[in-house]
Amino acid sequence: MKKLLDLSIPNEGLTLQNLIDDCAQTLKYQVRTGHPHFMNQLSCGLDLVSMAGEWLTATANTNMFTYEIAPVFILMESVVLSKMREIIGWRGGDSILAPGGSISNLYAFLAARHHMFPQYKEKGQSCLSGQLVMFTSDQCHYSVKSCAAVCGLGTDNCVEVPSDERGRMIPRELERLIVERKSKGQIPFFVNCTSGTTVLGAFDPINDIADICEKYKLWLHIDAAWGGGLLLSKKYRHPRLSGIERADSVTWNPHKLMGTLLQCSTIHFKIDGLLLSCNQMSADYLFMQDKLYDVQYDTGDKVIQCGRHNDIFKLWIQFRAKGLIGFEKHMDHLMEMAEYLVERINQTSDKFYLILEPELVNVCFWYIPKRLRSMPHGPQRIQELGKVCPILKGKMMEAGTLMVGYQPDDKRPNFFRSIYSSAAVNKGDVDFMLSEMDRLGQDL
Amino acid sequence: MKKLLDLSIPNEGLTLQNLIDDCAQTLKYQVRTGHPHFMNQLSCGLDLVSMAGEWLTATANTNMFTYEIAPVFILMESVVLSKMREIIGWRGGDSILAPGGSISNLYAFLAARHHMFPQYKEKGQSCLSGQLVMFTSDQCHYSVKSCAAVCGLGTDNCVEVPSDERGRMIPRELERLIVERKSKGQIPFFVNCTSGTTVLGAFDPINDIADICEKYKLWLHIDAAWGGGLLLSKKYRHPRLSGIERADSVTWNPHKLMGTLLQCSTIHFKIDGLLLSCNQMSADYLFMQDKLYDVQYDTGDKVIQCGRHNDIFKLWIQFRAKGLIGFEKHMDHLMEMAEYLVERINQTSDKFYLILEPELVNVCFWYIPKRLRSMPHGPQRIQELGKVCPILKGKMMEAGTLMVGYQPDDKRPNFFRSIYSSAAVNKGDVDFMLSEMDRLGQDL
Repeated sequence: MKKLLDLSIPNEGLTLQNLIDDCAQTLKYQVRTGHPHFMNQLSCGLDLVSMAGEWLTATANTNMFTYEIAPVFILMESVVLSKMREIIGWRGGDSILAPGGSISNLYAFLAARHHMFPQYKEKGQSCLSGQLVMFTSDQCHYSVKSCAAVCGLGTDNCVEVPSDERGRMIPRELERLIVERKSKGQIPFFVNCTSGTTVLGAFDPINDIADICEKYKLWLHIDAAWGGGLLLSKKYRHPRLSGIERADSVTWNPHKLMGTLLQCSTIHFKIDGLLLSCNQMSADYLFMQDKLYDVQYDTGDKVIQCGRHNDIFKLWIQFRAKGLIGFEKHMDHLMEMAEYLVERINQTSDKFYLILEPELVNVCFWYIPKRLRSMPHGPQRIQELGKVCPILKGKMMEAGTLMVGYQPDDKRPNFFRSIYSSAAVNKGDVDFMLSEMDRLGQDL
Repeated sequence: MKKLLDLSIPNEGLTLQNLIDDCAQTLKYQVRTGHPHFMNQLSCGLDLVSMAGEWLTATANTNMFTYEIAPVFILMESVVLSKMREIIGWRGGDSILAPGGSISNLYAFLAARHHMFPQYKEKGQSCLSGQLVMFTSDQCHYSVKSCAAVCGLGTDNCVEVPSDERGRMIPRELERLIVERKSKGQIPFFVNCTSGTTVLGAFDPINDIADICEKYKLWLHIDAAWGGGLLLSKKYRHPRLSGIERADSVTWNPHKLMGTLLQCSTIHFKIDGLLLSCNQMSADYLFMQDKLYDVQYDTGDKVIQCGRHNDIFKLWIQFRAKGLIGFEKHMDHLMEMAEYLVERINQTSDKFYLILEPELVNVCFWYIPKRLRSMPHGPQRIQELGKVCPILKGKMMEAGTLMVGYQPDDKRPNFFRSIYSSAAVNKGDVDFMLSEMDRLGQDL
């Protein structure tokens, strides 16, 4: 790739024609993430309305820290975020857009720590008599553990709770670990419950976890960055997300299931005012109180960024285009495509092995090349199937016809995880995926 | 504004014509930050090449965590960031793009802590015998203090070093405060030196501060988010940024002086490998080591985000269009416009009062309405001039012809700070700014 492209920075500027060639070349060699045969990440597809929204956003090129330079966009944030909180099941509360789910989870962590230990902002760990500890399942997104590193707890104080065979946190294990840490004089304060794990698409049991959080007075954060989109579907919301309204905070990324352009991540709080008191630094030069408008619309002091990209317009215009009903159909369609894939895998069980019945659009499976089809399924075949994954993925990339991701987990070697989050995927694409994997992989 | 606009989220999706009307309405009521009479923030103007770059970025809609889904853009990052490090004066090192200067400064803080106390990532504060403390001037950007809150030090352990009358950190005060904190058993580890303060545009004396950091073995971070653009100008780089190559890390935001579209912020490290070892969480599902390419191009494990927006293309294409020479002219032009403004203010000193000779494009001044022109300049007039600012700013916003920011600081009540960071500003615009302020404000 380095040899194919001239990416150098010239001394003298290039001509317009050169720049157009640069653009054409870039698009030619870039991966077509908008194509329905791109099933590699949680964010697939290209929603054209959202894309047009991003073009307008670029043209308006403003910053979201104060109302005075982004009045329309700030009001849009207010409308969209309060609708999202209503969908979660709250009245009131507060929310903000963040550059990705990891930073959204970080905001939840910071708000929880600030709410429970208000002196921490000024004094740090020295205001407490014991070590703070947080809990999350061993299947959670890695950003949760990263919070512990960034915020000074240390990753040793982010306790991993075991999950069941479907990848869901085991509530009695959570309770056992809370009691264990408390008995050491440590201070449990935060539980992360994942709604839609990254690899298996599992939903931790919210109500059981919420009961434990209430019992021990812990902050309940729900990382629904991935699964949150299902809140828009009457059919699929329950039981997966039942109890979400009991959380103190919820991460929900429209740039995943909802197909909003990258990046668009939201974090919601049940309590209003916390985001501001937690992150406020009261910079005199931005957040003056003597302005000629209601300064509660200056959202910049609620975040740890200063300048903040406008991530709302592309989501707002998408809500206008689809409406709530359109988004519900979109969610139902994605789930139906995953169900269809499962059906097809089960129909061709000589070539494909379904690892578990999915709760979300993550479908985890092995592809079985000819030489392994007659081998009985067991540890030996699983080892071999794991070795097939990187080679078959490499073949897909060389052919340029398909991208499906693979990874190992704590229970298995490499396996494929396909994702349907592009609204453009139809049954033909599902069939293509299977036949193309078979075409490329049968002799491996 | 709320009454003028219909921002509601419908149940049924709207028609294409509705959506086009929505877009037109949004652009109509949005602040024209690209207009040369917008002088309100550090990011003004609209670079058309960078905007076209952002359109292509939206269309390509990919994520920067792995090479496999963003090959061209990852290589562009590598080329542009190493050129920027070369301009700083380093060979080797490492860099990353972050969502804004605040997060860039956070990366510097995290890398410094990790480099000096590698156990902190796992153990947290409990691995140290004393409290960590950091130092920054009282004029620094508020994100530096925010690092102390976020990362668990507490803002009390972010020590504010006094600055001189020009807003530059006083090195002997820095040394005095380091010695004072050490004598209390605390552990100084990090000094933030600002190159281009937000309000006054001051440059802290890098070489003097670097001497102190060497003496006490502290990490030297330079926050050149704002002033970094001047590195591209032979004429203006020295003495302002002399010694920058002595830093351990440098924040530099192309979305400010260089006019790149929002957001585009870079953080650079002299030492390679640190960003990865500091932030790495080694998620199995993204950063597998058995991929069919060189996995050092998977940059995602260097950051505390997971998904990362593509902020490179709009900068790369701008470098291609302008070349290094074009960017140098751009910087020199902005500085010349600020010099011209100072000249014009000095020529009309009955109506305008220059607060200090600027080092950067921040020009700080008061506007003097008719009734105050004959009053001798002193504390009483200054109080009155301060009161004029929010009223005159309100008049600008009502007229819709001009936006210039104001703020108080620790030495003065409100004063205006105009910023020239749009390449489109010419002498006529400078003249317009002054005459329009006089037209709107003379009777206040």
